[in-house]
Amino acid sequence: MSRLKVLFHVNETEKWDTALGNITNLLKDAGEDGVDIAVLANGPSVEVFMDDVRVQAMKELAGKGAKFLACRNSLRNLCSGASACMDINSLPSFVEVVPAGITEIIRRQADGYAYVKP
Amino acid sequence: MSRLKVLFHVNETEKWDTALGNITNLLKDAGEDGVDIAVLANGPSVEVFMDDVRVQAMKELAGKGAKFLACRNSLRNLCSGASACMDINSLPSFVEVVPAGITEIIRRQADGYAYVKP
Amino acid sequence: MSRLKVLFHVNETEKWDTALGNITNLLKDAGEDGVDIAVLANGPSVEVFMDDVRVQAMKELAGKGAKFLACRNSLRNLCSGASACMDINSLPSFVEVVPAGITEIIRRQADGYAYVKP
Repeated sequence: MSRLKVLFHVNETEKWDTALGNITNLLKDAGEDGVDIAVLANGPSVEVFMDDVRVQAMKELAGKGAKFLACRNSLRNLCSGASACMDINSLPSFVEVVPAGITEIIRRQADGYAYVKP
Repeated sequence: MSRLKVLFHVNETEKWDTALGNITNLLKDAGEDGVDIAVLANGPSVEVFMDDVRVQAMKELAGKGAKFLACRNSLRNLCSGASACMDINSLPSFVEVVPAGITEIIRRQADGYAYVKP
Repeated sequence: MSRLKVLFHVNETEKWDTALGNITNLLKDAGEDGVDIAVLANGPSVEVFMDDVRVQAMKELAGKGAKFLACRNSLRNLCSGASACMDINSLPSFVEVVPAGITEIIRRQADGYAYVKP
């Protein structure tokens, strides 16, 4: 059976728990070798990378092959905002920054990734 | 013209009315013979199958060919929760239980189904 | 590199600012000649076309090639409702009415458009 490919799109902070639960169940069901998982964070949801508890959960999923991608535009907007700001260079090491989140979503689908919005 | 194929993903209870309205309109527009409709319920949204009014509406849509799929993981979580619990064996007869909802969503897209999140 | 194709699905009024921001960033990243953008409005979100500020923002994006599509069923429901009603003939000239929004979403995906739900 061919390998599954999926991109999770998370643009709201309150959807992370659902997303991480979905990914956990998917890895149990399909196995680490059975699925390519990409998780694209854009919009305010990128603030999750300052949340130690969720970062730890993500790190475990990353250890099982899930790729976490953060939109650079969104990281910058977070800083232009407000109370909280994040140095891009201080992101968790398992997070990859992509120049434009929506472009990444489009390219992945063109490359055969299913789209899931938790 | 080739037959349309679509998977509706419903993971929040408050989205069912939108989803059922979308499906009703789609069937009017494309005709029962013009479209394959799958509806995947996961997360807390699976509690809808205890809601008699919506179950009746779904039953009518199922009679026109729409397939309703419920995630087994989510049905179990509902029970590990709380006040309301549902015996999987007492689900409406038109509902098919799938082992893992997200896997089903990925496979359907790989099989040419469009993805719609109401 | 092949041209990108994407359909944005907006069915809630409160998602328009996110959607218009996504489209603005996408056009900056991919260039007007690098991407085909369709924006499908259905459900209550079609009321945005009575909102002068957002219509102006959309008009600028339409001038850069984004196509705005409104579901006829949803426009009619808006009128069967209530306080606000919109004459289909008085929609902004850059908006194209499609008979059934969900059918359009399915066809676009079958035609290679990525799906994005802001």
